[in-house]
Amino acid sequence: MHGLHRYLRQELPIINDFLARETEKLQPLVRSVAGHVLQAGGKRLRPLLTILFARGCGRVSDDVYPLACAMEFFHSATLLHDDILDDSHLRRGITTAHLVFGKTETILAGDVLLALGNRLVAEYGNPCLSLRVSEAIMHTATGEIQELDWINTPTLSQDHYLEIITGKTAFLIQAACHCGAILAGGDPVLEQAALDYGINLGIAFQLTDDALDYEARAEISGKPVGGDLREGKLTLPLILYLEGLSKSRRNNLLSEFTLKTSASKQRTPCLSEQRIAAIIDEVQTSGCVGVTRQRAAYFVNLAAAALEKLPDTAERKVLEEALTHTLQRDK
Amino acid sequence: MHGLHRYLRQELPIINDFLARETEKLQPLVRSVAGHVLQAGGKRLRPLLTILFARGCGRVSDDVYPLACAMEFFHSATLLHDDILDDSHLRRGITTAHLVFGKTETILAGDVLLALGNRLVAEYGNPCLSLRVSEAIMHTATGEIQELDWINTPTLSQDHYLEIITGKTAFLIQAACHCGAILAGGDPVLEQAALDYGINLGIAFQLTDDALDYEARAEISGKPVGGDLREGKLTLPLILYLEGLSKSRRNNLLSEFTLKTSASKQRTPCLSEQRIAAIIDEVQTSGCVGVTRQRAAYFVNLAAAALEKLPDTAERKVLEEALTHTLQRDK
Repeated sequence: MHGLHRYLRQELPIINDFLARETEKLQPLVRSVAGHVLQAGGKRLRPLLTILFARGCGRVSDDVYPLACAMEFFHSATLLHDDILDDSHLRRGITTAHLVFGKTETILAGDVLLALGNRLVAEYGNPCLSLRVSEAIMHTATGEIQELDWINTPTLSQDHYLEIITGKTAFLIQAACHCGAILAGGDPVLEQAALDYGINLGIAFQLTDDALDYEARAEISGKPVGGDLREGKLTLPLILYLEGLSKSRRNNLLSEFTLKTSASKQRTPCLSEQRIAAIIDEVQTSGCVGVTRQRAAYFVNLAAAALEKLPDTAERKVLEEALTHTLQRDK
Repeated sequence: MHGLHRYLRQELPIINDFLARETEKLQPLVRSVAGHVLQAGGKRLRPLLTILFARGCGRVSDDVYPLACAMEFFHSATLLHDDILDDSHLRRGITTAHLVFGKTETILAGDVLLALGNRLVAEYGNPCLSLRVSEAIMHTATGEIQELDWINTPTLSQDHYLEIITGKTAFLIQAACHCGAILAGGDPVLEQAALDYGINLGIAFQLTDDALDYEARAEISGKPVGGDLREGKLTLPLILYLEGLSKSRRNNLLSEFTLKTSASKQRTPCLSEQRIAAIIDEVQTSGCVGVTRQRAAYFVNLAAAALEKLPDTAERKVLEEALTHTLQRDK
């Protein structure tokens, strides 16, 4: 991991500085909301991927930062809107923006960050970049809405789960990689490598996230364990666990798990905290979390294969290490 | 108005058809929310302005519709997010989307429409267009957040009011005009005419809206009278009315008018329905609604002057008629 850590040490201050300078220019209230979500930390995975692919595909000039940081603004905007949707109370260990600033302010600040990202991308004067990010954001929001839809009528479909996580997580990560390759000149072979690496890394990233949700302790991840279960989200560890149950036990649990929608269209979970703890315990001891992590490793291998098309550079090495890191992370 | 009505009869079916076809391609839940807000009618002012400026500045080709309709998608997205913010119950006389589909679905559907608009614009391969719309959307969301900020600490500043309505309404209308001129080839004189016409029409449009809010009857406008007052929004008719009061009466009313923010960051109005009716009555009889309409006429004149730089075409005539229509509309 030496290369990855060295790269992070070198690039993170530049990324964070750019993000801070752009945020500083925003209207004060937007600035507060944006600062809240950006300063909460985060891995800066997406900007880093853009930088790595731009350089790994041969871009020498240092003009990649606005493009890279646009990816973080898009990501931050989806986090702001997501936390309202989920009514999450914690994000990366700190209180979520809508509880600090109000829902209305948070929706609008998200809209400003989406538009700011689009502006930073448009300033490159390359229509392929603008097209790429608008498609990725459409997919991301559509993936999230499909997830909501699924919460209302959960079914045991691994394919449908995969489609949803590809939408809500992997497409934006893919776009971050692809935009780097486009900026580097758009060699079709390199672009395809970026597309393949990005989508598979994105899926592996979300699978690991979903595994962590059943194993992580709040003090490490900054999120309470079982958050997905609490929100009524059916993720792979639970799908696998349900598949191993008898039909009657499975249907019982599924019906228990379904959220009730009230007249005000607010969804309220039916599970008590005690039941949630019991289900988490069962899923943990079933080995399904481990199987979820194995599935993540499968997609990481596909991403690794895609990297072979890239020239042998320091950046390719870091992109390889990022794959290992994705599988090993504990938060 | 013959030219305007003939133009509307000719163009509205094409615009609506394009909007319907693009909406049809969306994920089913997004499609329902988008269809709900789009089918509720609306004037299609923004797409029409793009078409008129593209042709009025010399564009012959019929490739303007995706660009024009992108403006309506942006507008629809802001309506969806707005109605959540305002917790409005009616939009154009029908129940607002978030009450039909839920807040979460409505936030995400708005995000999809924003991204769809960006994609339609990006497909032209002209970075000036993408830059223009991303800036306009930043201004729009910032204007809305400034308005929220103002609701918390209202002051009697006509300049600040003008800044807010320019942001939340006029910039997107300006972008609709400007994008038409850019598509037509980007002659600097014609672009400047589009910018000047758009911003002044946009301000006049919002001023008329704010006047209507104190005079319209629900059965005509589809919105209840005094909606702004109910939401704690200080608009020009009320600002002018407050300016005419003695200092003590003014401060009393302002303090009454301020919304209370609860611990949950929800704002609740302090005014009873009886008080609201009394204030509306006072504002109506004060003549301040008429002064607001005169102010709208001032900006319409500035817009008319900008049109003189355009070649003398049927489109320029329609753009002139649109100004008169803006002042005369009763819904």
